[in-house]
Amino acid sequence: MALKDYIRTIPDFPKPGILFRDVTSLFADAAGFELMLDSMVNALSGIRFDVIAGIDARGFIVGAALAGRLQKGFVPLRKEGKLPGSVIRVAYRLEYGEAVLEVHTGSFKKGMRVLLIDDLIATGGTAEAGVQLIKAQSADIAACAFVVDLPDLGGSARLQEAGHTVISLCSFEGA
Amino acid sequence: MALKDYIRTIPDFPKPGILFRDVTSLFADAAGFELMLDSMVNALSGIRFDVIAGIDARGFIVGAALAGRLQKGFVPLRKEGKLPGSVIRVAYRLEYGEAVLEVHTGSFKKGMRVLLIDDLIATGGTAEAGVQLIKAQSADIAACAFVVDLPDLGGSARLQEAGHTVISLCSFEGA
Repeated sequence: MALKDYIRTIPDFPKPGILFRDVTSLFADAAGFELMLDSMVNALSGIRFDVIAGIDARGFIVGAALAGRLQKGFVPLRKEGKLPGSVIRVAYRLEYGEAVLEVHTGSFKKGMRVLLIDDLIATGGTAEAGVQLIKAQSADIAACAFVVDLPDLGGSARLQEAGHTVISLCSFEGA
Repeated sequence: MALKDYIRTIPDFPKPGILFRDVTSLFADAAGFELMLDSMVNALSGIRFDVIAGIDARGFIVGAALAGRLQKGFVPLRKEGKLPGSVIRVAYRLEYGEAVLEVHTGSFKKGMRVLLIDDLIATGGTAEAGVQLIKAQSADIAACAFVVDLPDLGGSARLQEAGHTVISLCSFEGA
């Protein structure tokens, strides 16, 4: 069974017309979860990094499992108001309205190579906010890695145009 | 360095008088994260389970890393409105107001043994909601496991009184 076959599609979530690619069905299956981790480890071979940063909240699942597998530390990039210490924040635009992503100050050191992880890249706004949070602490982006790419929404192309290495394990055409 | 030494304490979060035990400093340290995983694997020896359920959102970090280590599937128990499929929901009381925890229907099968994971147990309201979501699908609780216990807040004792096996890797006295 291919990785993509573990991912179910739910129409009209979070709003009519959207085909939501639901990775929870992949995570819940032991063979699927293991295939995802093995595939990510393979895709990352040759990329040197010091720490993994995962995006709230499904990026925590992929990123933390990978950190455990590769014996790296894990830094959560969180939605507004969740982190108890002093934070750096980036506001970014969603299709409707605005969202904020935060990271604890001191999470990254100058020159540290950070692997940015999320479950899925669509328009890329959240990933770009993550990139900003990492760069704001003078760390470097080793790569941006996703389980699912929705290439027609342009996010992965924008990250590549900005000079980043982008890894994805599978992709779905259309929005 | 002991596990507890990686956890920093931040006063007055989320409100005055609370000493917040911040596990992000543990997660961010590769040696700390590895020690946490090894300690959890050791603490779980002898406990048989089929799948891991982690509580939104720090429970995702601990639970998914453990799922990757032990080659189990991972089921997220999420805050309201985050899951795209049909859900079972449980409302529970917080100190002020109410919160809702949800799980996709069909996440657990009858008789399946589920390991419930969160980063920390305080009063236990969220963990008890997680227990209810698992039992509502006729699955069994193999154990409830936490990185940090705040025993003076009574949550771990209440879970044990309800007949559950409770595992925690370290504890802090006081609230």
